[in-house]
Amino acid sequence: MSSKKAVVLLSGGLDSTTCAYLAKHEGYKVYALSFDYGQRLVREIESAKKVAAAVGVAEHLVMKFDLGMWGGSALTSDIDVPTGHVAAPTIETTRIPVTYVPGRNMIFLSLGVSYAEAIGADKVFIGVNSIDYSGYPDCRPEFVQAMQKAIDLGTKAGVEGKGIHVEAPLLMLTKAGIIELGTRVGVDYSLTWSCYQGGEKPCGACDSCLLRRKGFQECGRVDPIDV
Amino acid sequence: MSSKKAVVLLSGGLDSTTCAYLAKHEGYKVYALSFDYGQRLVREIESAKKVAAAVGVAEHLVMKFDLGMWGGSALTSDIDVPTGHVAAPTIETTRIPVTYVPGRNMIFLSLGVSYAEAIGADKVFIGVNSIDYSGYPDCRPEFVQAMQKAIDLGTKAGVEGKGIHVEAPLLMLTKAGIIELGTRVGVDYSLTWSCYQGGEKPCGACDSCLLRRKGFQECGRVDPIDV
Repeated sequence: MSSKKAVVLLSGGLDSTTCAYLAKHEGYKVYALSFDYGQRLVREIESAKKVAAAVGVAEHLVMKFDLGMWGGSALTSDIDVPTGHVAAPTIETTRIPVTYVPGRNMIFLSLGVSYAEAIGADKVFIGVNSIDYSGYPDCRPEFVQAMQKAIDLGTKAGVEGKGIHVEAPLLMLTKAGIIELGTRVGVDYSLTWSCYQGGEKPCGACDSCLLRRKGFQECGRVDPIDV
Repeated sequence: MSSKKAVVLLSGGLDSTTCAYLAKHEGYKVYALSFDYGQRLVREIESAKKVAAAVGVAEHLVMKFDLGMWGGSALTSDIDVPTGHVAAPTIETTRIPVTYVPGRNMIFLSLGVSYAEAIGADKVFIGVNSIDYSGYPDCRPEFVQAMQKAIDLGTKAGVEGKGIHVEAPLLMLTKAGIIELGTRVGVDYSLTWSCYQGGEKPCGACDSCLLRRKGFQECGRVDPIDV
């Protein structure tokens, strides 16, 4: 078995799940890291656990911390999650959605890098996507590049060793493209959870549900958890 | 009263305490953020609370998360903290001390930035120092600059607004220089805690105790908690 290790930031959503399967497909021992950060979507954590089991990860850690301490987002505070339209569908959109969580991907990447460095992993996979999530500044290629530089300069692995590479394989794909890629590497999308609301079934109306539906429609596939 | 807000990353040690007083001195409403991250130095948190009270902060949050989940440092796991010598005293030292915590300042800055963005603060003060802590890659100017770029590109404040500036006022000062500066702005160093060990009194033998003693000696002042 390969001794190459990769940390995968795993929310249990469609994108991060695709990353976990990709890492496995590329021969990595997968170390999944999920965050219970006071978000509404605790349902995601359950999906992350199922995905981790299905992928056959070497370890799955769930780190708990409370970003709700300072709020600032519809996902961590009492601001309503918008429904009925996709807030950030195109690269031209500059409005930042209320579901933006201040500094989220910076925090997630930093924690993933810490984990990677402690276990000697080569890579941190993150499912950021700049096509469908262009409204989120921390989902853009230039942000990922800047973080890579900070990691190169600010870690022992970067300064002395082989480095830790941020792998963002979905960065420039459409949702349909992600689903196509994931399907090719065996992703079981029935395990994933995308809805921003915390209900028993996907609401079918929030940004995330709408993007998911659009993605499956565009690639002509059936969503196993039809939203 | 000023409405300018600054987040100060406050460990309760000598450096971060100096930053808190500096921020206050510069007219900021201070929002102190401490981390209970599974480190041995829980004693620090008590110091941070005393410092926050003495400075008169607008808010003091203690965020809890467990970096000990993956270890990798003498400060978060069972590796012995070295004593009797200063592991990283000069800019020429390239060996990284075992007290290095993987990704620590990247994590701390990311969380500080998230807090700053949520409350509309202009700055995040961090007490990093590249003179005495040259062995830590995440205490160097080039790391701070790289993080600034990631913050500019990856936050709503950076993309749409006034930005969030990382303020590292101690970056190029010696420990003696820090103590001089702090004394000028009224720092009560009796409130601070520097020792890496978790004892009732400072051990006087770890890196941090030795650097502190050297700093007070060099500027000809008496340490109120003589180590």
